[in-house]
Amino acid sequence: MQYPEPISKLMDSYMKLPGIGAKTAARLAFFTIDMDEEDVTDFAKSLISAKRDLHYCSICGNITESDPCDICRDKDRDRSTILVVEDVKDVMALERVREYHGLYHVLHGILSPIEGTGPEDINIPSLLKRLQSEEVQEVILATNASAEGEATATYLSRLIRPAGIKVTRLAHGLSVGSDIEYADEITLLKAVEGRREI
Amino acid sequence: MQYPEPISKLMDSYMKLPGIGAKTAARLAFFTIDMDEEDVTDFAKSLISAKRDLHYCSICGNITESDPCDICRDKDRDRSTILVVEDVKDVMALERVREYHGLYHVLHGILSPIEGTGPEDINIPSLLKRLQSEEVQEVILATNASAEGEATATYLSRLIRPAGIKVTRLAHGLSVGSDIEYADEITLLKAVEGRREI
Repeated sequence: MQYPEPISKLMDSYMKLPGIGAKTAARLAFFTIDMDEEDVTDFAKSLISAKRDLHYCSICGNITESDPCDICRDKDRDRSTILVVEDVKDVMALERVREYHGLYHVLHGILSPIEGTGPEDINIPSLLKRLQSEEVQEVILATNASAEGEATATYLSRLIRPAGIKVTRLAHGLSVGSDIEYADEITLLKAVEGRREI
Repeated sequence: MQYPEPISKLMDSYMKLPGIGAKTAARLAFFTIDMDEEDVTDFAKSLISAKRDLHYCSICGNITESDPCDICRDKDRDRSTILVVEDVKDVMALERVREYHGLYHVLHGILSPIEGTGPEDINIPSLLKRLQSEEVQEVILATNASAEGEATATYLSRLIRPAGIKVTRLAHGLSVGSDIEYADEITLLKAVEGRREI
């Protein structure tokens, strides 16, 4: 005997999500049946709406309801600076700090020879196009501090610098509140290299 | 800056599921946006359908599209035996074994004085009613081997036995394929107590 069809279909849908296997899918499906009808309806509507109403900004690749996105359309933002990130979630993290007022460019990935991801597979061509036509003076490379992140930053820096545009990288060092004792070696190395006079 | 409304709403929905916090909800929401449109539509439909088309059987408490459920309506099943489980998923697990051919009764919970769950809060009254009107000769108590599961089994056994109905409990002992060395003490105790001549 199998689960009734509506529940096995729902389990199949849950199993398409990352990190959710058969047992978790069953638990979530049974949980769904016991949820308020209103919550389930809202859930279904928000799935449809997120897929239908959200797009990637044709300029910067950020996620948005309108194209271009709010940041690209905002006249008050500093159009001379573009901050390059791997992922949409990085934009949100930086916006929460309220310290950066320039534009963004979301790569939607990272160069990775091992996984076969080359410059054409991520949003690098659209970045280069922006640099030709816009009045950009500085590109801040905010890819992650991973091996691929560093390699992508180096690659982009070599492409962009010859055009006379200033290229910078976010500072790497000890996290605020962290113990030197427990910091990994690369982080400590970056912290010593990047030391500043006080 | 916040996430666009469609994605923050979807994150709120994901966060209503058990074991999913803000970070996982964000990851799932962004994953959803990159899913095939068809998969997302199927997901939304299956949520609605699971909530709308599934009910609990008015006789045994099993989950079903039709009431009474397929098992309760099946004329070929042995109506003299009722197997009592805590949860609908236990029914599915037992049905997969294809060894038991009687009826079921799903308690939808377990007696727990600590959480304030008494006999009236779970499907015990409906079980007692079935025992009065049906030609039941044996009740198999298949609650889990937890403290509450054992207590519930003992409670039910004391209620049912005086009516002249045979009451049994699933065998407890070593799992097939398990090492004695790593078995917990209670399991070993149950295995020794329940030893059988070969």
